[in-house]
Amino acid sequence: MNAGLKVFAPASVANVACGFDVLGFALDKPGDEIIVRFSDQHQGLRITEITGAKGKLPFEVEKNTAGYSAQRLLEHLGEEKRGIDMEIHKKMPFGSGLGSSAASAVAGVMAINELLKRPLEKRALLHFAVLGEQLADGAYHADNVAPSLIGGMVLIRNNAELDVHRLPVPKGLYATVIYPHVKILTRDARAALSDQVSLKKCIEQNGNLAGLVVGLYNSDLDLISRSLNDVIIEPQRAQLIPHFYDVKEAALNAGALGCSISGAGPSIFALSANSLIAENVGVAMERIMTNAKINNELFISPINQEGAIKC
Amino acid sequence: MNAGLKVFAPASVANVACGFDVLGFALDKPGDEIIVRFSDQHQGLRITEITGAKGKLPFEVEKNTAGYSAQRLLEHLGEEKRGIDMEIHKKMPFGSGLGSSAASAVAGVMAINELLKRPLEKRALLHFAVLGEQLADGAYHADNVAPSLIGGMVLIRNNAELDVHRLPVPKGLYATVIYPHVKILTRDARAALSDQVSLKKCIEQNGNLAGLVVGLYNSDLDLISRSLNDVIIEPQRAQLIPHFYDVKEAALNAGALGCSISGAGPSIFALSANSLIAENVGVAMERIMTNAKINNELFISPINQEGAIKC
Repeated sequence: MNAGLKVFAPASVANVACGFDVLGFALDKPGDEIIVRFSDQHQGLRITEITGAKGKLPFEVEKNTAGYSAQRLLEHLGEEKRGIDMEIHKKMPFGSGLGSSAASAVAGVMAINELLKRPLEKRALLHFAVLGEQLADGAYHADNVAPSLIGGMVLIRNNAELDVHRLPVPKGLYATVIYPHVKILTRDARAALSDQVSLKKCIEQNGNLAGLVVGLYNSDLDLISRSLNDVIIEPQRAQLIPHFYDVKEAALNAGALGCSISGAGPSIFALSANSLIAENVGVAMERIMTNAKINNELFISPINQEGAIKC
Repeated sequence: MNAGLKVFAPASVANVACGFDVLGFALDKPGDEIIVRFSDQHQGLRITEITGAKGKLPFEVEKNTAGYSAQRLLEHLGEEKRGIDMEIHKKMPFGSGLGSSAASAVAGVMAINELLKRPLEKRALLHFAVLGEQLADGAYHADNVAPSLIGGMVLIRNNAELDVHRLPVPKGLYATVIYPHVKILTRDARAALSDQVSLKKCIEQNGNLAGLVVGLYNSDLDLISRSLNDVIIEPQRAQLIPHFYDVKEAALNAGALGCSISGAGPSIFALSANSLIAENVGVAMERIMTNAKINNELFISPINQEGAIKC
């Protein structure tokens, strides 16, 4: 058996406070690894090994996020009969709000595209990865997939159109993410959201998102800080995460520019002006969770500018 | 009597499709002129002449938008006892959705600041001009005032905080505005708006506004065009403007990047990639209104980059 080709797709933080469903950024770590190799033992794609998933992920290609997205890409390329073996190494937590399924979907398409010597540009893989995400989450949403694939801070103007734009990020901007080991069911996170918003809050959120974009373009950290404020989703979901407001307060007191829920939670992210502050913010966030006897993991990372890569 | 000092403050287009309450841009014309001069005949500010208002504007300083904002500025500067005469020359229509009261308020504070040899920076005048706008409209809103004062395309992240940011504008971007002579009462325009929005529409609007900002920074005309789409306010107010959708369709068919209601209407604005297209768009918009026997005025202008000026 040959060594195979290995790719890495990073975790990501979707929503980014004021950008519900339209904004996300990638982390350097954690993330998923996928190894693929050609096989002359069989036709088609086969998942041969899954690690790090505690038996929770299916080997059946059509039911596995990475397999599904990879299979759609293979069909698109007319390569669905090629014998390919895929190993999936989950190296990040499920259900953490860090885009675990998106990372798998991205790694799946990235691995196939690399194995086949890049028939498509990276951005053209987006649709196929989003199909994998849709299998996992039920929604055709790119707010985790796009940053995991192309890296950076990404605006998805419109998910259906995959109208996706990389935004500039001020030099030094660092993320701190704490993943408290509590379980939030996706259906609870969705049920927490009213399908109506007051016009006033909608305008406020609009202003904040536009302000954040301007702040990113102008490297205006004060403006970024004022804009990292979610007046719609966070107030509805915060109660699903124990000690959310304590963690947020601790992060802001430690110097974070802003702090909110990562994706649908339970992870909480903060952005800071540099890695030193991000470390201090991490200590402060961790202290709250540890004092409350909630197991947790901490990730401190710059904004990942590469996205998915061949290792 | 000395010649006095003359200032001009331009009309402006607020909302700009996807930026309800948070976005506005200034036009080169029309606008208001105000002339001020010192007088040793009396103490305090006095309005001595008003033209172009058909008797509809009060001479009483505290009830006149320009007088009120000027008076607040004079008090702030401790100059309220200076004898000052003010002439107001309305050179733009009232109730047109082109920021008429904002232009007056801006011209008022600009004139005083220039007469007193600029004790304040231009941006510091914003609060006082917004007070004048508040007298006229009841709301502390900078979406017309800020562009009229500082020029350009302006994001008001937060009106209460006057967190105001000039956005870059692609070279050549041109506005076409048609003012149909129909009356929309402010209370009707407000009553047309539901105070609730679906979360889905709010997200769509968010994405469009952020997309517009990115498009402006990147001079990406296609993205600007896709983003100039108001899914919340326009559908609720369009029926107040006869033939709105016909005019919009004609503008888009003539090559406009986007077309929507200017402020609360009845004016309709379009943005185009250059002046030639803007002229064609104007012809197309005018034809609809004229065929429908609705008197109208047409204004074609680049995005005004100077805002209020001393003439």
